[in-house]
Amino acid sequence: MKRIVTDMDDVIADTLAKYIRVSNAELGLHIRKSDLGERDLWHFVGRENFPRIRAIVEQVDFFGDLDVMPDAQDVLLKLSAKYEVFISSSAMEVPSSFMAKFRWLERHFPFVPPSHLVFCGDKSILNADYLIDDRERHFKSFRGEGILFSAPHNMNVTGYRRVNNWREVEALLLEKGAD
Amino acid sequence: MKRIVTDMDDVIADTLAKYIRVSNAELGLHIRKSDLGERDLWHFVGRENFPRIRAIVEQVDFFGDLDVMPDAQDVLLKLSAKYEVFISSSAMEVPSSFMAKFRWLERHFPFVPPSHLVFCGDKSILNADYLIDDRERHFKSFRGEGILFSAPHNMNVTGYRRVNNWREVEALLLEKGAD
Repeated sequence: MKRIVTDMDDVIADTLAKYIRVSNAELGLHIRKSDLGERDLWHFVGRENFPRIRAIVEQVDFFGDLDVMPDAQDVLLKLSAKYEVFISSSAMEVPSSFMAKFRWLERHFPFVPPSHLVFCGDKSILNADYLIDDRERHFKSFRGEGILFSAPHNMNVTGYRRVNNWREVEALLLEKGAD
Repeated sequence: MKRIVTDMDDVIADTLAKYIRVSNAELGLHIRKSDLGERDLWHFVGRENFPRIRAIVEQVDFFGDLDVMPDAQDVLLKLSAKYEVFISSSAMEVPSSFMAKFRWLERHFPFVPPSHLVFCGDKSILNADYLIDDRERHFKSFRGEGILFSAPHNMNVTGYRRVNNWREVEALLLEKGAD
């Protein structure tokens, strides 16, 4: 059975939406996701405001109420019948997020056992056939195939198969016989 | 550069000593590590007392003051010059332990970057050449070589290269040219 690892933030969880929401609320801004283009959210928030937003992100419950990306649950459940499915998150950058992320994953993806959750930093440590991620840097030393999940910041990245949403993941990994 | 992953509990951290300490204190027992033989600690503690001890283990700071295994720091630092060194822990079994484990690792192994820490359950997800662990079950689907770190519960296990302490790890991986 082949193995898929999917990233959490901005792949199965709409973390960017939460970042925008708290930035708008904290700083009285009106940023929309569609405004971003390839520019980093910090371009709009302002580097000088980084510590204020970072302090909010480090609150233990920040990651507890993220929205689930459309169709992520349905497609991952279907994939579970044909692949070993793992979920990985770079929680090491915000260690205070561990518990909230773990509980969020348990709540929204109960069919993925806790033993298939991985918190790590350098994803080259993952032994899998496919890694679905929005950050191309994780593909450089990954031993399987990286599949790029579209996000505003990666729209000009080339060199990988790209999926724009979870229905496209389904088409790629379940219908086209990519395995 | 080849890659080594070492387990945390009972390999670089003397977790069993802490379990024994709290069990003795909580239940008025006098268990010593040398009493265990291959028998599980629960044999001495009694299944009926499991919930009391488990409640202590789930306190957020339980893993914060574990003793470091003798020579683990010195040998892992030396190994870092020749190998990529990662540390992995099965923190998914006690999710409340994430932060304390992370802080403990940062404090005692500052030369291992946070990006090289991995919290996971099923260690077959690790892409590495060597896994130093006290639990043989992790070796079954591991793609590299499992090296068994001696612990009371594994003294009769065969089929793997065995190390009894960190000086033996040094001899095996730095002096004998095992790579």
